[in-house]
Amino acid sequence: MNILVALNSCYIKPAKIMLKSLFLNNPGESFTVFLMHSSISEEEIRDLSSYISSQGSRLEEIKTDDSLFADAPVLFHYTKEMYYRLLAHKFLPDSIDRVLYLDCDILVLNPIRKLYDMDMENCLYVAAYHDIPSVKEINKIRLIPYEIKAYHNSGVLLMDLKLHRQYIDENEIYEFVEKNRSKLIMPDQDILNALYAKKIKGVDEKLYNYDARYYNFYKLASGNVWDMEHVIRNTVILHFCGKRKPWKKGYNGKFLSLYKHYEKLAFPA
Amino acid sequence: MNILVALNSCYIKPAKIMLKSLFLNNPGESFTVFLMHSSISEEEIRDLSSYISSQGSRLEEIKTDDSLFADAPVLFHYTKEMYYRLLAHKFLPDSIDRVLYLDCDILVLNPIRKLYDMDMENCLYVAAYHDIPSVKEINKIRLIPYEIKAYHNSGVLLMDLKLHRQYIDENEIYEFVEKNRSKLIMPDQDILNALYAKKIKGVDEKLYNYDARYYNFYKLASGNVWDMEHVIRNTVILHFCGKRKPWKKGYNGKFLSLYKHYEKLAFPA
Repeated sequence: MNILVALNSCYIKPAKIMLKSLFLNNPGESFTVFLMHSSISEEEIRDLSSYISSQGSRLEEIKTDDSLFADAPVLFHYTKEMYYRLLAHKFLPDSIDRVLYLDCDILVLNPIRKLYDMDMENCLYVAAYHDIPSVKEINKIRLIPYEIKAYHNSGVLLMDLKLHRQYIDENEIYEFVEKNRSKLIMPDQDILNALYAKKIKGVDEKLYNYDARYYNFYKLASGNVWDMEHVIRNTVILHFCGKRKPWKKGYNGKFLSLYKHYEKLAFPA
Repeated sequence: MNILVALNSCYIKPAKIMLKSLFLNNPGESFTVFLMHSSISEEEIRDLSSYISSQGSRLEEIKTDDSLFADAPVLFHYTKEMYYRLLAHKFLPDSIDRVLYLDCDILVLNPIRKLYDMDMENCLYVAAYHDIPSVKEINKIRLIPYEIKAYHNSGVLLMDLKLHRQYIDENEIYEFVEKNRSKLIMPDQDILNALYAKKIKGVDEKLYNYDARYYNFYKLASGNVWDMEHVIRNTVILHFCGKRKPWKKGYNGKFLSLYKHYEKLAFPA
């Protein structure tokens, strides 16, 4: 399976943890991990490559040029690398038709084969929208006049690259960024939803993009079906959304002990 | 290494989870698991035995006779099997000199070799006492007039069986139980502390008997040294003390996600 990640040096640690969870929970699968970056050192790439090789998969480096997004806003803790996912089809080999983009602040808890092989029904993306009422409503209002059905999270994106090569117009993206600079909070996600909402196939966030902050909400809203056992056995992708990250000091949350477990597996003493 | 567990049918599930964590976090080690019980069915024993064998260790069944403890009080959620640990030397083969008793409501997070090979300094037991101020003081008062230095938890006990064969007198235990029936809350633990406190070598509970309920206390009391990362990397034995258990519905706590992870590994769908 083809995996796409986009990062800078600061995210190598969580990337390794994410990949460790992916490999461990997908035994018998082999991955090609495409790494889009502009600034990671050769030494770090070699290290990451041997880390991935030692676990039966392989790294393909895609070094990009930041000038492509020189005008794009960089806000809060977001970096330019997050834009790469929107134009990935321009950098990935022509020979591949499908790729699963994964953020680094993720744990993969179960096999991803079913997601990866999903019928995309002629959509550009498969993504989950975060169905927490307040988030959804605020984002719809914020991005008026774009016709948004649901606000999809861009941290997990299955991409049909054949369609991307035909339909995704980089100039349209640049224009959108220029025109909405002041409105954009999570630029990549805003672009995704404003420009491509109608061409996104939605999937259940609790399976494929579980927001780790909302354990209690998901549990209650499901009549206690989504308790911890159900999450651990069913959620494929657990996403540590938001500013606080479990690999940093001071994080607290339901999944911290699990995260630190995978962190130890990725970085034994 | 020799491991001792004592259980009835209700605890087979957590026992398997505990053993899974023991095996996974002690690669390269092989264990003989002595199982003391009085009522587990042959079919359940066969299942447990093949479960343990499939992971490179082996089960030794020790079927005991309940009449031995017919007069011992059974209180709350405790079962007669918990007394077995105090007279284990009478049931274990003469050929073994050392055994590590483990409760079933435990996860083993790191290698136990250092604990197992510890110099016991002529003590009967190695155990941790739970240094939560209120627990300690209440138990000292409760068991007056016995001279108790510290109230050790009996969930993790390293035993010098040679010394046990010489010094542990079953009649002394029976008399103690008879005399203190009304005072006993956690009988096995009370006996351990009242009769053998001076012959117990204490070890750090945060390493060898971390009470999962007290994450915040340990963290604060250590000036934030014992944060989650430190626990996951250093704690050898995590103990789910108390009435609420993580394999039952309704449990909530810092280590639930980690527990459910091991539960899934022990019981794949």
